[in-house]
Amino acid sequence: MGNRIIAISREFGSGGRTIGKEVADKLGIPCYDAELIEKIAEESGLAKEYIRINDEHANYGRFVVNNFAAGQTAGSFDLQEHVWAAQRQVIQDIADKESCVIVGRCADYILKDRHDVLKVFIHADIEKRADRVVNVYGESAESPIKRVKEKDKHRKAYHRYFTDTEWGQAQYYDICLDSGKLGIEKCVNVISELY
Amino acid sequence: MGNRIIAISREFGSGGRTIGKEVADKLGIPCYDAELIEKIAEESGLAKEYIRINDEHANYGRFVVNNFAAGQTAGSFDLQEHVWAAQRQVIQDIADKESCVIVGRCADYILKDRHDVLKVFIHADIEKRADRVVNVYGESAESPIKRVKEKDKHRKAYHRYFTDTEWGQAQYYDICLDSGKLGIEKCVNVISELY
Repeated sequence: MGNRIIAISREFGSGGRTIGKEVADKLGIPCYDAELIEKIAEESGLAKEYIRINDEHANYGRFVVNNFAAGQTAGSFDLQEHVWAAQRQVIQDIADKESCVIVGRCADYILKDRHDVLKVFIHADIEKRADRVVNVYGESAESPIKRVKEKDKHRKAYHRYFTDTEWGQAQYYDICLDSGKLGIEKCVNVISELY
Repeated sequence: MGNRIIAISREFGSGGRTIGKEVADKLGIPCYDAELIEKIAEESGLAKEYIRINDEHANYGRFVVNNFAAGQTAGSFDLQEHVWAAQRQVIQDIADKESCVIVGRCADYILKDRHDVLKVFIHADIEKRADRVVNVYGESAESPIKRVKEKDKHRKAYHRYFTDTEWGQAQYYDICLDSGKLGIEKCVNVISELY
């Protein structure tokens, strides 16, 4: 069986999202990225803004009472578990329904037992990512390296908590690419050809 | 500047050596693998057999008096440092001299500051590797999974000792490929196209 789903995990600032969209365009299949937030919000009954903020960048391992969801009295930790359950469901439903690219949200882990998933990890060195965050994403140029490091730290903690795997360990992916060294276009071509 | 050197690091039984040879054939450049042993032996003044045995599979972190090299009175640890120095020199000389594929021997780390090196890591799940060890390499079928695990353990310790990096962490390579999932041929094609 060929690959029907491409699940892209990526370091912040590596261009993984852009690569996902370009691969999807090239293959004529949809790319789920921001669209996931809407679907997870719908599935969980929580606000989109909550899903957006409490994604891979959230802090795990500590309980902070959180008032984003009206009527919710439990700590944010319980909410994050609730979001995770919704996220699993949404991603499994999408994978059952159609060929597509899914960016982030641990789709690689959630779909790990399927044989039709190409699991991709995109990374780049920190200077190139900081540069991209400022010059492509248009974020503030103040301490971009510090910001990228913080995102890395949170994303790592998130992955460890929910997947019990080490983020960025090659053995968990079918292919890992350094977008800083190879460039976005080559990454898009390699992934598309493997599909 | 394009990639002139392809440095392949690989899990035992992943077919990384075969991939290296096929990539080299396809590109019409030499592949250094067993040839490295001869060169390192020559550079270090030690016996080929010593170099072959005390490679990435050796035990690091303990001192064992070793009599492989005639006249050598120091522990094997000092010898391993001596072999490492010779290995560095041989790999740097090869990289200065010609375009090529180099398999193993931490060539990716030794050449990490050059911009003309494509750093590749080949891995596969343990069942597929154990199967390859028995059916392709023709090794004894007794406990192949245990044998692969032991090789992994030693190779990891070797890399940590000499390179202070985590073996198989995607961030240290330009591209990592699961040869078990993708197959040898696709790995050869992807690497050749990136060259």
